[in-house]
Amino acid sequence: MNSANKPHYDAPTLGTVGIIGLGLMGGSLGLALRRRHLAATVIGCGREALVSRAIEMGAIDRGTQDAAKVAEECDVIFLCTPVETSIGLMRLIAPRLKPGALITDVGSTKQAFAEAAREIFNASAAERVLPGHPMAGSEKSGLENAVESLYDGCLWLLTPLGHRAALQQDALRRALKGLGARLADVSPNEHDRTLAYTSHLPQILSSVLAMTLEAQFGSAENPALELHAGGLESMLRLAAGDPAMWTQIVQCNPRNIATALERFEVELRHLRLCLEDAEFRRRFEAARDFAITLRTKK
Amino acid sequence: MNSANKPHYDAPTLGTVGIIGLGLMGGSLGLALRRRHLAATVIGCGREALVSRAIEMGAIDRGTQDAAKVAEECDVIFLCTPVETSIGLMRLIAPRLKPGALITDVGSTKQAFAEAAREIFNASAAERVLPGHPMAGSEKSGLENAVESLYDGCLWLLTPLGHRAALQQDALRRALKGLGARLADVSPNEHDRTLAYTSHLPQILSSVLAMTLEAQFGSAENPALELHAGGLESMLRLAAGDPAMWTQIVQCNPRNIATALERFEVELRHLRLCLEDAEFRRRFEAARDFAITLRTKK
Repeated sequence: MNSANKPHYDAPTLGTVGIIGLGLMGGSLGLALRRRHLAATVIGCGREALVSRAIEMGAIDRGTQDAAKVAEECDVIFLCTPVETSIGLMRLIAPRLKPGALITDVGSTKQAFAEAAREIFNASAAERVLPGHPMAGSEKSGLENAVESLYDGCLWLLTPLGHRAALQQDALRRALKGLGARLADVSPNEHDRTLAYTSHLPQILSSVLAMTLEAQFGSAENPALELHAGGLESMLRLAAGDPAMWTQIVQCNPRNIATALERFEVELRHLRLCLEDAEFRRRFEAARDFAITLRTKK
Repeated sequence: MNSANKPHYDAPTLGTVGIIGLGLMGGSLGLALRRRHLAATVIGCGREALVSRAIEMGAIDRGTQDAAKVAEECDVIFLCTPVETSIGLMRLIAPRLKPGALITDVGSTKQAFAEAAREIFNASAAERVLPGHPMAGSEKSGLENAVESLYDGCLWLLTPLGHRAALQQDALRRALKGLGARLADVSPNEHDRTLAYTSHLPQILSSVLAMTLEAQFGSAENPALELHAGGLESMLRLAAGDPAMWTQIVQCNPRNIATALERFEVELRHLRLCLEDAEFRRRFEAARDFAITLRTKK
């Protein structure tokens, strides 16, 4: 085949990319980066069986079990593990980074990660680390659920640690857009305060609903529970999520989450005390208007 | 066309059917009864514009605004209005019923309806009234959302008032199966106690989540709320439901609902007080196992 007939691709947006953690998020990231030619090479890091499977799936070019080795080779490193694990990995790989290399992550809380980055990298934190949070994923987890399209249309939040945007950060932003994500910048504190209400609160309510039903009915096998419909199932969907991930999220954002839960408890008690009053309907109508407006805006 | 070429249908399961209330439930019922040849004639009762629209859609053969007139003509009457409205209608049409005619309903609480039936019909209540609750529908409401398939595969609960099953009740059960429903019998009390947990509690949690977000963010238009994903949307889906219907459900089952809410509040407070303990993960894991088992069983 002569060169005129060769398929032509632009130079990939990112050079050598490391993905540490080969679950739903990391696996989907690798699939999308490779199939969309956004990275020159993708190196995965995870348990041996996961690395083999990720290579088979086409999610990574090659892999290793040694996170520090990945760091030595890569221009951009995605930490795709639960948030406290990612903090430990950032500390581990920091001394081995190539000059100019950039670390990012996909954790659901950002303040603890941002503080750790500042402590590890001091004055160069804003240049070396651009924390991120793609609002994608579901109650499913694991490499076996990874799909190229996971980030298509998702909101990918970034929490820059300062104004010193390096060239590598511009490239990362272009690559994330190449994944189909919409980008938005927000401060780490604002991120954790808001997500306590819009993400962590709904998750916990779903889990506490399951706990309440178990306390009342003893087990999900109780035949009385056959008396349910789609409404209950949609309210229990999030409860099927990964406890390891959610434990770390909660441990990194306990004060904001406790405040959101207390606020919910106040609203719930109020409503319980007016079940038979006209006030009940007024509150239910306001809630309906809120829910419909939020959905329509999107 | 000679008779050999005429399409052949079995005799319809039900004779003249009245549907009082032409919303999502009544409209869908009419569509399915007529298209599946389960009723000889379907008479609708509702506001004039709804009657015209229901005729256009093929959900009813003809209609009226006068519920008592419907009662005089029909063999089976479906009350498809919010539960307290249905109780009032049952009282209104009771003196006008044809001999042998049967009343049923589609309300989400059953104890108040059952008590009213016993009070109105005395010794013949078990024969004249077979209360029902199809666990179908969604946050959508209104005739414009009616579809023939609404009851396909749904669980249709029946709460017989005694053991005197009349012939007409067997025909009703066959017709409901013809709508695609699975039937289950349960006592009115057991129904309301269980549904307080499996239906009313999830609905109220969704609405209180919306109330909490409105209290925190002021309005659904607050740009901070753009920081949300599918998890929040699925937890707010039920909150978009009809406040008129839910107000009546709550007013007919306040004690069971208050008990379920209190039980939820206890579980939520427990969890809030162990956010940073190992206990948190243990509870989250139990909740996940419960949610997955419930989903798998179906």
